[in-house]
Amino acid sequence: MISLARTERLSDRADTGLPPSVAARHACRAGMASSTAGVANGFVQGNLAILPEKLAASFHRFCQLNPKPCPVIGMSDVGDPRIPSLGIDLDIRTDLPRYRVWRDGEVVEEPTDIMAHWRDDLVAFVLGCSFSFEEALMAEDLPIRHIERKVRVPMYRTNIACAPSGPFAGPMVVSMRPLKPADAIRAVQITSRFPSVHGAPVHLGHPHSIGIADIAKPDYGDPVPVEADEIPVFWACGVTPQAVIAAAKLPFAITHAPGLMLVTDLKNKQLAVL
Amino acid sequence: MISLARTERLSDRADTGLPPSVAARHACRAGMASSTAGVANGFVQGNLAILPEKLAASFHRFCQLNPKPCPVIGMSDVGDPRIPSLGIDLDIRTDLPRYRVWRDGEVVEEPTDIMAHWRDDLVAFVLGCSFSFEEALMAEDLPIRHIERKVRVPMYRTNIACAPSGPFAGPMVVSMRPLKPADAIRAVQITSRFPSVHGAPVHLGHPHSIGIADIAKPDYGDPVPVEADEIPVFWACGVTPQAVIAAAKLPFAITHAPGLMLVTDLKNKQLAVL
Repeated sequence: MISLARTERLSDRADTGLPPSVAARHACRAGMASSTAGVANGFVQGNLAILPEKLAASFHRFCQLNPKPCPVIGMSDVGDPRIPSLGIDLDIRTDLPRYRVWRDGEVVEEPTDIMAHWRDDLVAFVLGCSFSFEEALMAEDLPIRHIERKVRVPMYRTNIACAPSGPFAGPMVVSMRPLKPADAIRAVQITSRFPSVHGAPVHLGHPHSIGIADIAKPDYGDPVPVEADEIPVFWACGVTPQAVIAAAKLPFAITHAPGLMLVTDLKNKQLAVL
Repeated sequence: MISLARTERLSDRADTGLPPSVAARHACRAGMASSTAGVANGFVQGNLAILPEKLAASFHRFCQLNPKPCPVIGMSDVGDPRIPSLGIDLDIRTDLPRYRVWRDGEVVEEPTDIMAHWRDDLVAFVLGCSFSFEEALMAEDLPIRHIERKVRVPMYRTNIACAPSGPFAGPMVVSMRPLKPADAIRAVQITSRFPSVHGAPVHLGHPHSIGIADIAKPDYGDPVPVEADEIPVFWACGVTPQAVIAAAKLPFAITHAPGLMLVTDLKNKQLAVL
């Protein structure tokens, strides 16, 4: 394994001769723990949820019932830390920059690997993430406010109830991007092509209608301005499963740390359904 | 030819044994002159523009430059009143319920056929119409306010300039349908599949941004209410070419009378591009 200074950024790792996604995972294995935003451009990144087998079936059904916030793009076999469909050499225990270990609904640890926490009964789920559709929007020259301002996307709890499954229940969390109306229409078209990374928006125009009291006060991430000639456009967000896992107060679960995602060998453009 | 009382409605003609679109055209030939709304459900209806050959090339280019308001779904050869691609026996001189004859930008006559006006140098253009995409919206249970209220769709002149071609120039006219936000997103997806009948909306949410001062005062058609939890959604409208033809003050042109369209043998579902 390569030894790396913690201050090096993942995006600096272009000199390994490896594909950028593999290089990013190897850097994570070596202990790097920075944001994956902008890392391995063109490659799909994913949200992570790891649960004991006895809860995994309920969670998988929760994802099936709520595909917009929880699109499953890969999952492990029980007790197996590999997900070859997302990367031949991928090891879910080491290949993310940072993890969150949850006990009874609280984050108790944020380690850079979970070798000490892995068990024979765990199942890992990887869920699509908005980085993929943002790449598709930017490729068509649509402006993404929070990326321009170098802040986190604003996210909000809504009054849209997810369909429950076992202990998993709660409101959908959405991310918001302000767009001019013609761009909003184009964004609906573009993101409709990518159902496995949240797909089309779930709402636009009336934040109050989905239970958002103040657009300037997101529940997660950072606020961004919505100009007078723009409308706020809301997409289902991968924070939803993490919020639901927290609310379920499960004895044990593991997720990624926000913004520090799994980099896979899938290409974003492979996810287009047409 | 069948002789019909003028008070009979086109939609009453289900007893001829002919396909409904052919029966509708035959009824028009016999002099019937009522609205084609609701006639021959499932079949494409079209806006009509007939111009002398020396202006037809400029108009055709205007349509090519402005495909959202002016999607050409059929056109005749010079001096030929037939358009077999839209109906084997179609005669553009007789097969619409009512026509408008324009001279110097004014309607001078509204005959039920144009046999007396036909000339060897005329070219007929048939342009897609919103009836087709409204059928697709209703098939997915989206409510169409003006249809529910049995009024004409509200239409507005905008500040969106059409790309000019020869004497043809002017603002895009749009039609408006109020929808709840999630329905508006679905409507973008559905109508995107039908580019030959105006396609995706051109705007939503901010009427002022496209030069509409008062949503309650349409320039054509009838007003409909936009509720507090709805957004107005605007599509390019087939009234645009008629407004442009009027503004150009051409010596001579013929169009259909508003709402009294050409019924073709194309099926709406054939127009879906995916």
